[in-house]
Amino acid sequence: MPTLERHDNVFVLDLGDGENRFHPDWLAAVGAALDEVEKADGPRALVTAATGKFYSNGLDLDWLFAHADQHQDYVVSVHELFARTLSLPLITVAALQGHTFAAGAMFSLAHDFRVMRADRGYWCLPEADINIPFTPPMAALIQARLAPQTAHQAMLTAHRYGGVDASAAGIVDHAVSEDAVRTAAVELAQAQVNKAGDTLGTIKARMYGPTLAALRDTADPLG
Amino acid sequence: MPTLERHDNVFVLDLGDGENRFHPDWLAAVGAALDEVEKADGPRALVTAATGKFYSNGLDLDWLFAHADQHQDYVVSVHELFARTLSLPLITVAALQGHTFAAGAMFSLAHDFRVMRADRGYWCLPEADINIPFTPPMAALIQARLAPQTAHQAMLTAHRYGGVDASAAGIVDHAVSEDAVRTAAVELAQAQVNKAGDTLGTIKARMYGPTLAALRDTADPLG
Amino acid sequence: MPTLERHDNVFVLDLGDGENRFHPDWLAAVGAALDEVEKADGPRALVTAATGKFYSNGLDLDWLFAHADQHQDYVVSVHELFARTLSLPLITVAALQGHTFAAGAMFSLAHDFRVMRADRGYWCLPEADINIPFTPPMAALIQARLAPQTAHQAMLTAHRYGGVDASAAGIVDHAVSEDAVRTAAVELAQAQVNKAGDTLGTIKARMYGPTLAALRDTADPLG
Repeated sequence: MPTLERHDNVFVLDLGDGENRFHPDWLAAVGAALDEVEKADGPRALVTAATGKFYSNGLDLDWLFAHADQHQDYVVSVHELFARTLSLPLITVAALQGHTFAAGAMFSLAHDFRVMRADRGYWCLPEADINIPFTPPMAALIQARLAPQTAHQAMLTAHRYGGVDASAAGIVDHAVSEDAVRTAAVELAQAQVNKAGDTLGTIKARMYGPTLAALRDTADPLG
Repeated sequence: MPTLERHDNVFVLDLGDGENRFHPDWLAAVGAALDEVEKADGPRALVTAATGKFYSNGLDLDWLFAHADQHQDYVVSVHELFARTLSLPLITVAALQGHTFAAGAMFSLAHDFRVMRADRGYWCLPEADINIPFTPPMAALIQARLAPQTAHQAMLTAHRYGGVDASAAGIVDHAVSEDAVRTAAVELAQAQVNKAGDTLGTIKARMYGPTLAALRDTADPLG
Repeated sequence: MPTLERHDNVFVLDLGDGENRFHPDWLAAVGAALDEVEKADGPRALVTAATGKFYSNGLDLDWLFAHADQHQDYVVSVHELFARTLSLPLITVAALQGHTFAAGAMFSLAHDFRVMRADRGYWCLPEADINIPFTPPMAALIQARLAPQTAHQAMLTAHRYGGVDASAAGIVDHAVSEDAVRTAAVELAQAQVNKAGDTLGTIKARMYGPTLAALRDTADPLG
């Protein structure tokens, strides 16, 4: 389960050491951690990270198939995770030490910056291959953060980007060696702790107004 | 006139061996070919290509000047070609072996990917030079597919991009030697034939919803 | 104060030799210069430039703090400067010989192209550091002209881009040596003087319709 630690002014949220899929309990734990980070005072920033082969594989499809009647509420809660992350009034950095797939990849795009391991692991939106179309708000999030050519290739071909390719395509901001991923993410966050505050929150809310509104439109989340 | 052939799972639509302008008969033939490709079953992808010096020079201005009373209907039919191509539920690749100008260039942008000859031929939006402003839906299509800096230069300066420059600017995905253009496009399409289906169609419809709605708004196509 | 000169078909508007902040008198003088350029006939283009260490530092905060009751009208007049520049029916080039900050940086983005000194001087949006959130129309302008990854970094981290970095990020089109900045901008403008006219104005108006509407919405300019 996700665990939150604080090192000086940088909070580090470890998403887990498994596939770190979005089980409702995992979503609740991450939400509580974001509450704690948001409510803290003073200079601060957030790094999300994980341990092992995966950063996150996204939706918990096993749970979802067993709870089909809760499909819409589940999607609403995932959209809300993306909206909260995208609008946090502090700088957020995702440390992608392992595979980052599907909704896990979208979660990474809701962060301000991404640092990815260069030599192994993929960032991938496999939706076109697994027959799960992006919800309209998910598509809006991805397209708000990636260049048109990159979004098109990523969303339609399920291309698996290694770290170097992901950096060249502008999906991640830095591709570094395995042992440097978390360190580089923390350093990037540490340099921005003084940005935390209402001004940053307002800037984010205005930059991504339509995307946030779509993610928070609970009336028809499946489009 | 356009001719459609099938090689394994890849349809190849040859647009012709002239300037391949959008005469109403040409539009009807291309539309019928897209119908055939869309209605086919199973794994498939589409390559559009041409023979000779031109991929396409776009609108048939001679016909248009001779039929000024049909201007609006003609523009609606061109918008519909772009909308259909952009939303086909299968991967499309344009093989640009020759000059790709004006509405021919826009047609290429309605494809998922573009392969262009590296050493000769230009991709160009000459509208600013020939005093034909882009219709609002045409502008929306171009801006949905190109980075802001590239769209700005291409649309306002009528810059002629050779294959290498077009690749660097993200207008085309690959620039290759003359004899490799069609082969590379077919290989790219062949690798994606299993993407064909409703999921891909839904993803495209959601990604380009506003652009498709503008292209299909027949009430006031000229803005 | 700003001064306008004409060299052949290229107008050169010198913004001044100080910080070139947007005092109401400065705004009026720049507005009058844009009137003159717009009303002129025939082939023409516009270069804006400055003398000394600064291109422009943006809003005149001293004047603004002394005239807090005129805050909203002042913002409306700044938005109008951006809208006018973005929609001029001729090609505009900003010659960035010195620091280009905040609303000065936004003004540069309202031009069609930017040439920046490579070895000294910064292009920077410091709003996140100085606790002045972008108005929604300002955010719209910046996001309409920059790639998503670049807009995100520039708007949230107040990163100072030198000329080489600004060129790599697509913020400026060319980074050149100090003595070449104005010359290169004039040459770039000279090559496009024949674009001046209604067609170019229509193309710009359609490309940036929503951004222009936001900049000209005087009802609630502060969001």
